[in-house]
Amino acid sequence: MNRMTDAALEESRQRVRDAAERARSASRRLALLSRAEKDAALGILADALTQASGQIVAANESDLTRGREQGMPESLQDRLRLTPERVAAIADALREIAGLPDPVGEVVRGSTLANGLQIRQVRVPMGVVGMIYEARPNVTVDAAGLGLKSGNAMILRGGSAAADSNAQIVRTLRAALEQADLPADAVQLLDGGHDDVTALITARGLVDLVIPRGGAGLIQAVVLGATVPVIETGIGNVHVYVDRAADLTVARDIVLNSKTQRPSVCNAAESLLVHAEVAEEFLPKVLGDLSAEGVTLYGQPLVVELGRAAGIAVEPVTDEQFAAEFHGLEMSVGVVPTLDAAIEHIDRFGTLHTEVIVSEDRSATRKFIAEVDAAVVMVNASSRFTDGGEFGFGAEIGISTQKLHARGPMALAELTSTKWIVEGDGQIRA
Amino acid sequence: MNRMTDAALEESRQRVRDAAERARSASRRLALLSRAEKDAALGILADALTQASGQIVAANESDLTRGREQGMPESLQDRLRLTPERVAAIADALREIAGLPDPVGEVVRGSTLANGLQIRQVRVPMGVVGMIYEARPNVTVDAAGLGLKSGNAMILRGGSAAADSNAQIVRTLRAALEQADLPADAVQLLDGGHDDVTALITARGLVDLVIPRGGAGLIQAVVLGATVPVIETGIGNVHVYVDRAADLTVARDIVLNSKTQRPSVCNAAESLLVHAEVAEEFLPKVLGDLSAEGVTLYGQPLVVELGRAAGIAVEPVTDEQFAAEFHGLEMSVGVVPTLDAAIEHIDRFGTLHTEVIVSEDRSATRKFIAEVDAAVVMVNASSRFTDGGEFGFGAEIGISTQKLHARGPMALAELTSTKWIVEGDGQIRA
Repeated sequence: MNRMTDAALEESRQRVRDAAERARSASRRLALLSRAEKDAALGILADALTQASGQIVAANESDLTRGREQGMPESLQDRLRLTPERVAAIADALREIAGLPDPVGEVVRGSTLANGLQIRQVRVPMGVVGMIYEARPNVTVDAAGLGLKSGNAMILRGGSAAADSNAQIVRTLRAALEQADLPADAVQLLDGGHDDVTALITARGLVDLVIPRGGAGLIQAVVLGATVPVIETGIGNVHVYVDRAADLTVARDIVLNSKTQRPSVCNAAESLLVHAEVAEEFLPKVLGDLSAEGVTLYGQPLVVELGRAAGIAVEPVTDEQFAAEFHGLEMSVGVVPTLDAAIEHIDRFGTLHTEVIVSEDRSATRKFIAEVDAAVVMVNASSRFTDGGEFGFGAEIGISTQKLHARGPMALAELTSTKWIVEGDGQIRA
Repeated sequence: MNRMTDAALEESRQRVRDAAERARSASRRLALLSRAEKDAALGILADALTQASGQIVAANESDLTRGREQGMPESLQDRLRLTPERVAAIADALREIAGLPDPVGEVVRGSTLANGLQIRQVRVPMGVVGMIYEARPNVTVDAAGLGLKSGNAMILRGGSAAADSNAQIVRTLRAALEQADLPADAVQLLDGGHDDVTALITARGLVDLVIPRGGAGLIQAVVLGATVPVIETGIGNVHVYVDRAADLTVARDIVLNSKTQRPSVCNAAESLLVHAEVAEEFLPKVLGDLSAEGVTLYGQPLVVELGRAAGIAVEPVTDEQFAAEFHGLEMSVGVVPTLDAAIEHIDRFGTLHTEVIVSEDRSATRKFIAEVDAAVVMVNASSRFTDGGEFGFGAEIGISTQKLHARGPMALAELTSTKWIVEGDGQIRA
């Protein structure tokens, strides 16, 4: 690293240090707020966003113009685009967060010990949470709202494609926080170069947790470079396994919904495994369904053959395709001789996100549930249900694919830590 | 790094990779065991240790001889020493673990969604857990026992001072696992050089969690070098704050017990803060108590002065001493004008482990509980109660001082992750 790069990184470190210290100071205030105060503030933030809708849409238009100039695909433009209706929906999400129970102060467990000490484990905010994300500017608002409700100060690092939108949103939120008599530094935006990310993920002792949310490259870079605790999110090579005892009508619905209902997200299915005993009956139908929806298919030889017989194009599949998260209308398809072979395949290619079995056989589903290692195991349901909103959490900050701290959809409780409180009358240890 | 070092590290990586793959395979088996099977195996392990007591004590004698030759202090020799009685006590710890409830399978929460999907979050083993520790060979047995009960395969890396003891213990445990018809690779010992540690903490995808347990240097090295998830443990700069509303008799007992009952451990107090209003009454007494117990005292000017008036030697304190975890008979002593000043001091010098307030004033204790950021906040009780055994967990794998996943004493539940199980009848997303 040359001297100029060093100097730039040092500048980022200083900026992040300052931001984190202001965040720490704000977090002390946030940790002590009552639910009523937090909910009232969320309402003020929501109103402020609606009122600033014009400025936010204008800032977003400038992001979109820059994106178009740089050749941003229409699908990405659509994810980035904010309209007055979308801003209103984003503001409503804050009101919904206000309606959720306060995670802070919840007593997780407790007891009175033999010596009379009363112990209880209570949820407390993490403190200062960093969030690094790409794409959609609504994540900025969701993160700020979930952070406020869980008593955390948030340091946000959005994608450069949404820089103007994020800047305007955070400006609006900070002004609203002050209006609510809360510290503006409860929400901060880092807008420097990549050095800011490096500085954020190595700010040990200043930042309590970093959550990366985005593509595989972003998440890998954060996980490998971080020295602060990280929650890994979102890579989903999701399988649907259709057992020999599946209700094949249910299976067709689930495969189609899992793959095509929203193919760009992490809980969409990428791979279909079919038990050999039902392959000849099931595959021609489901391949036809998928093909009709525009899904490009990659299959093992038997799948290619069954496709050809039914007049459906299936390319030969590679291991890379079995390992891929397509994020689009592509699907790998395999035939397995046994349930065990399906579990082995998932163990080899899965990413511990969501795995689905379709079966009416109780012992098969029990085995699948017990042996498949994933954040979410679904029986006879679409993989698309792995979602904080669908699980009833009211909102979602990401989907954890690691085993530490949080697994699956993360919302308010997952943004808290705990503290043990021990109360006595002078007990000492013998 | 030169080529020879590279080659050695690559060799370690290969060895750790092989060990982790064997551990993964064993962990699949462990994850499916019933409580009855695990408890029976723990009994067989305990019996095997008792039967091998002679060999274990002999191996330990060889560690001790090497230690004495290298000038190991008597206190460390005592921590390392195994006698037939100590081996019996270590074996009994396994029987106690067998008596604890099985954490695996516990339903943490669950509900039925509006669409009829039944969701439940269930505790599952982490999978493969690495543990890096120094000092006492009983940790080897505790880790193996807690790992087995929680369904995890353990890769252990003990300190070189206990190499022969650990090797004999693990040999005994592995033979007993086979006798119990379980995979021996549920417990493995890494006995290579420091490269093994580097390889273990960077074995992403192979190792689910690493827990370092030992001195500050070890823990820092692991936390900074790791790319696998880590739980930071055990650095404790523990404060006892004696409020102006303290029962001073209770306060003397708590200060003395917190500092001297076992000064070498992380939950021993290192620093005493006294409210100015009671300093003149309280300090001469407690400084006398501490001095009589052989505690070397470092104090702020008023403390030095009060000590001198009472004929007790108190050296002027430095910020380094206020920040230090002495692990021995030394204590820093400060006088604070207010409760807020005490909280600020703890915020500056504390390590988020255990903080104690002695007070009969309800608003003071409530404020201390709410505002002090620590794994454990004690009111009118000795800091020595921060301990898995004391909390009723039956055993302890370490004390987490981080906020992610686990905070405070860690036992069986903290060695588990969770899995969401979603059961439906063909539900798809609209």
